[in-house]
Amino acid sequence: MTKTDPRASDTSVFPDLVYKETVLRPLFDGAKTHHVQSFRAIDRAHLVMLAETEILPRATAGRIARALDAIDAEIDPAALRYDGTVEDYFFLIEAELKKRLPADDAGRLHTGRSRNDIDHTLFKLALKPRLDHMAGLLRALITATLDLAEREKATLIVAYTHGQPAQPTTFGHYLSAAIEVMLRDHERLVQARALLDLSPMGAAAITTSGFPLDRARVAHLLGFAAPLQNSYGCIAAIDYLTGTYSAVELVFLHLGRLIQDLQVWTAFEVGQLYVPNAFVQISSIMPQKRNPVPIEHLRHLSSQTVARARMVRDIVHNTPFTDMNDAEGETNEAGYQAFATGERVLGLLTALLPALQV
Amino acid sequence: MTKTDPRASDTSVFPDLVYKETVLRPLFDGAKTHHVQSFRAIDRAHLVMLAETEILPRATAGRIARALDAIDAEIDPAALRYDGTVEDYFFLIEAELKKRLPADDAGRLHTGRSRNDIDHTLFKLALKPRLDHMAGLLRALITATLDLAEREKATLIVAYTHGQPAQPTTFGHYLSAAIEVMLRDHERLVQARALLDLSPMGAAAITTSGFPLDRARVAHLLGFAAPLQNSYGCIAAIDYLTGTYSAVELVFLHLGRLIQDLQVWTAFEVGQLYVPNAFVQISSIMPQKRNPVPIEHLRHLSSQTVARARMVRDIVHNTPFTDMNDAEGETNEAGYQAFATGERVLGLLTALLPALQV
Amino acid sequence: MTKTDPRASDTSVFPDLVYKETVLRPLFDGAKTHHVQSFRAIDRAHLVMLAETEILPRATAGRIARALDAIDAEIDPAALRYDGTVEDYFFLIEAELKKRLPADDAGRLHTGRSRNDIDHTLFKLALKPRLDHMAGLLRALITATLDLAEREKATLIVAYTHGQPAQPTTFGHYLSAAIEVMLRDHERLVQARALLDLSPMGAAAITTSGFPLDRARVAHLLGFAAPLQNSYGCIAAIDYLTGTYSAVELVFLHLGRLIQDLQVWTAFEVGQLYVPNAFVQISSIMPQKRNPVPIEHLRHLSSQTVARARMVRDIVHNTPFTDMNDAEGETNEAGYQAFATGERVLGLLTALLPALQV
Amino acid sequence: MTKTDPRASDTSVFPDLVYKETVLRPLFDGAKTHHVQSFRAIDRAHLVMLAETEILPRATAGRIARALDAIDAEIDPAALRYDGTVEDYFFLIEAELKKRLPADDAGRLHTGRSRNDIDHTLFKLALKPRLDHMAGLLRALITATLDLAEREKATLIVAYTHGQPAQPTTFGHYLSAAIEVMLRDHERLVQARALLDLSPMGAAAITTSGFPLDRARVAHLLGFAAPLQNSYGCIAAIDYLTGTYSAVELVFLHLGRLIQDLQVWTAFEVGQLYVPNAFVQISSIMPQKRNPVPIEHLRHLSSQTVARARMVRDIVHNTPFTDMNDAEGETNEAGYQAFATGERVLGLLTALLPALQV
Repeated sequence: MTKTDPRASDTSVFPDLVYKETVLRPLFDGAKTHHVQSFRAIDRAHLVMLAETEILPRATAGRIARALDAIDAEIDPAALRYDGTVEDYFFLIEAELKKRLPADDAGRLHTGRSRNDIDHTLFKLALKPRLDHMAGLLRALITATLDLAEREKATLIVAYTHGQPAQPTTFGHYLSAAIEVMLRDHERLVQARALLDLSPMGAAAITTSGFPLDRARVAHLLGFAAPLQNSYGCIAAIDYLTGTYSAVELVFLHLGRLIQDLQVWTAFEVGQLYVPNAFVQISSIMPQKRNPVPIEHLRHLSSQTVARARMVRDIVHNTPFTDMNDAEGETNEAGYQAFATGERVLGLLTALLPALQV
Repeated sequence: MTKTDPRASDTSVFPDLVYKETVLRPLFDGAKTHHVQSFRAIDRAHLVMLAETEILPRATAGRIARALDAIDAEIDPAALRYDGTVEDYFFLIEAELKKRLPADDAGRLHTGRSRNDIDHTLFKLALKPRLDHMAGLLRALITATLDLAEREKATLIVAYTHGQPAQPTTFGHYLSAAIEVMLRDHERLVQARALLDLSPMGAAAITTSGFPLDRARVAHLLGFAAPLQNSYGCIAAIDYLTGTYSAVELVFLHLGRLIQDLQVWTAFEVGQLYVPNAFVQISSIMPQKRNPVPIEHLRHLSSQTVARARMVRDIVHNTPFTDMNDAEGETNEAGYQAFATGERVLGLLTALLPALQV
Repeated sequence: MTKTDPRASDTSVFPDLVYKETVLRPLFDGAKTHHVQSFRAIDRAHLVMLAETEILPRATAGRIARALDAIDAEIDPAALRYDGTVEDYFFLIEAELKKRLPADDAGRLHTGRSRNDIDHTLFKLALKPRLDHMAGLLRALITATLDLAEREKATLIVAYTHGQPAQPTTFGHYLSAAIEVMLRDHERLVQARALLDLSPMGAAAITTSGFPLDRARVAHLLGFAAPLQNSYGCIAAIDYLTGTYSAVELVFLHLGRLIQDLQVWTAFEVGQLYVPNAFVQISSIMPQKRNPVPIEHLRHLSSQTVARARMVRDIVHNTPFTDMNDAEGETNEAGYQAFATGERVLGLLTALLPALQV
Repeated sequence: MTKTDPRASDTSVFPDLVYKETVLRPLFDGAKTHHVQSFRAIDRAHLVMLAETEILPRATAGRIARALDAIDAEIDPAALRYDGTVEDYFFLIEAELKKRLPADDAGRLHTGRSRNDIDHTLFKLALKPRLDHMAGLLRALITATLDLAEREKATLIVAYTHGQPAQPTTFGHYLSAAIEVMLRDHERLVQARALLDLSPMGAAAITTSGFPLDRARVAHLLGFAAPLQNSYGCIAAIDYLTGTYSAVELVFLHLGRLIQDLQVWTAFEVGQLYVPNAFVQISSIMPQKRNPVPIEHLRHLSSQTVARARMVRDIVHNTPFTDMNDAEGETNEAGYQAFATGERVLGLLTALLPALQV
């Protein structure tokens, strides 16, 4: 076969229109929505380090810094509409730098880094506050449940096994068992957070770079505890994602069991718990009904959180140990929805639980 | 124990502020975004039937019809902001009717129906066009693949087993095998659609009503093939959801295998397929690289579609056979994302496949 | 780099001891347990076809047939212990043929076939009776439920929405809704079965062979409806697996909802259904308890069936569209457990349901 | 309605024949296979504590101890066949005690305990050695990978991003990144183990008992670190299960990515890694092929382990926070299969990795 090189006759131009609409625009919009502030922080931290280590002359660094400030002042990311002239948000900022700087300077901000290490840094910077917020909400729930357990420490309830009344105990006893689970779930979130706190910056594409980067300094400026050591792992290891979402899943899988009890205990025939009017919906055609619908919403929102947390791990199943899109923009954004849903569960349960009466 | 009835001292007022923010507003916003047009169609179809069957006097029906038109003209759903004065979008419209009609008339639109049958009708009306659109995109992919198979029917390729080159065959042979799977997947979508085409209207809350409703007429006016027979099933059976998303899952689980082959066959060392420039991305620091990144995006978007389709079934696991929120607003809206993601996969693959060269 | 070919110095001998213990023996034992009869049927059907088409001379075919009979008479598969001298059960039979036949003859049984088409034929032959058995049990459950619905067509029960008593209806009404779901689930099993009924034999490794095989004849002899057309699809397309287990999943996901109702309706406080003593367990330390534990077992066994049916699809996620072990021995054997568990659910529910009293 | 109590006319006798076959026998067989030794250990530890605390007179305790020894000597659990005369293995042993002891004595072994606390203790005693064994195998894999990384610290390989050759690095660099993940996965196993090490004994059914049990003593005798504090949690909290299987899932989800790389790197066209003959299978009809099939087996066995670990969490989704069968015998036994499959992956990978050559 005397095959001709297809590149010779390839007149197509990036990006294909369908690719632009189905992938590049959604990715760009996701970056706009979720990662702009962290992008800016990374640019600054990296630039400061390049200047401090004298990899870049101070004057160059200063010009880049002023150009970055100008871009921030002049461009409203929310107003940007992706048009296909650049690949993504990263290249858009680079193009803006080029407009504002001498040709040689613009590219030098990217010295010793790559979109690979930047991306995973962005995702960690997005996950840390989400995990912290969720952990804070869980602590608020624990506190509210502790107060309730104290209040109800002598209040008799029926404890069930196999769905049947079994033994008398106190509501406080029951709640304390739930608290023990919540505390362990909180500990699981804390353990997952440790890996989020290690910075990938400096890994560049895979193998770091020849420049004497100060990875610890960049990590510090971005609020990380330290750099992640192995540079291949910085761009390929994604257990910071899978570990985080595993811990999140468990919180809501376990709360779902408490919620099942609330559902049965507030059933008309059981009536072990009273749900106040503020949490009771009515029927559009059965006026006698008192539907404690918030509990049902807690159930399916917990299930949804579990499923969303699982989605992230499903997506990376049978993918290679490498830098790849399967663990990047869209997957992370799908994961953020797990936090959004889960926070609603925690907030609502923290409001509802203390309002219940035996 | 001489327990006092907690209702006696319950001074709380619906809705609790946290409940409003965590559940009622998101539900309202979801209804606004996804179900307004179908809500209007249901109101009209039900009203026409009530008038035709003389359950409502023509004059009353006429007044209600004019009030509905006025509401549509005067209220822009997109501009509505949920404030907690009503439970949901349904009650908001009822309140608007009451403003525009004599007290007796406003409620009569709701004769012989309930939010239960309305809700499942809404979800079916939302799923039918989505499923049709996806089936259409799948047919377009099949057509494109057929054309490609015809074009490449004599083009030799290496066929693999266990990841190793095994036997020569033609690209057309390979693609035809993929087409056979796609055709069966299309048939699965068609089979799932049959149940979407049966109308729940007339079931009311659970047990129909004493009024001589013409369920077939409402079904016809809403574009359904027929009513679903058992009224309990109308509000409790959700295999229209689970069956639809099972069929959707399989489409993308199977496409994912074709996509894996594209990923390997376009690898630099294998080079069995050439990806034109329009679909090739570059590296921010490795200029020699030709990354056929659309294939990677196809992989994770297929996985995401699979996971989203699965989420709907996860959420209804271990729920009762009854009308419940676990199968309603938020769960359906989570499911719509599976369609949105899957449509991107189908569109991109239909554009990419014919652009490849052996 | 003047690298030497590692094959030159490779003195290792197949199979590695650990590989033998961790993979080859379990595979061999799985074949022994599940596929011996079908293996024999395939050998006979293929041989008959080879003789009828005169691909093999009648005399050769006769000698092979007698050798196969001798092997069956002399070797008890259950007594075989894998020792690593052959790769798998297929090669063991080939080795036995070689002991009993002239060197030229032994290999000729394998004319125009491969382990690839044999394997997928084995799995279909294993799945068909399992699916038929499950469909039969489901029909028995439907019949029992129909009888019960007839018996209880006028028996009043409370119907629930959102876990609260809503409206009176009859037990027959409720059961009829459940029957409608079961009938649709049965139809889904029937639809999945169609693809199980197409024979892969004749595809050989991937591309059929140069011999004038009569694929329809082999299909007929093995009880298939017809051959599967595309030979690449015969060894690469696995929607017969994924489609079957999707249909199985739905049966038990839906039954799980009925079971949840039984669990609540038999709760002491609700007492809508009476469970007779034959299905009631006691407590080892709470003698007053009547635990209708079979319902709880139905719940978790349904969940387990759902999870096992899902496992098969999980395993093939992000695998290539090719012949591969991910869809073969161990994956299929893991799937058979879904049938085994599901059959217990169907049997127990068919016994329990009619025994309940309102 | 003057309904008669159905108990009055209930002449059925436990166990129903179908229930016996579909549930009780499999449960009994599971107990026989997995939990006999731990059952015996619990009986002894509890008895010793009852004697030490003088809850039982020494003489009584002595008689019970001798009866237990006699039962162990006379009854071979493996030979037992469930016949329905007792509910389960626990009651069988109690019946055997009654045969060998004065009526009053036999029941006294059960003082201050219940099947509930016994069951969860059994499951923890089953999980601890499994988790320890898996953690040990993971450490062996880490050690082997460390040795290999040391050996290959200067061996150049191609590192990939997006499936394309990207940068040169060393095999040692790559392996070290994998080791970092393995170490974190090992840490996750260790964290999960902490909860397995807290004893439920003494919780009895739910609320402990009136006897002055020494829970710490029983915990110590059974090899636990301490008792689990809240007695309700002892029988209802199952995060020891969900947490364990979450940690197990992650190990194999992550190894699966390394395995994907091995699959591609050993592909004929890529040839970055050489697989020695001991791990190479051949084709039954394509003699030129070298199939490194163990890698494919590693892939699907890892996927199977992930799916089995997930099954346990699927089963307990939307169950109540209570003692229930959904978290007991059959669910645990399904989980043990995840360990069995995972151990094969770890063993095979530890053998294969060092045998590979760049």
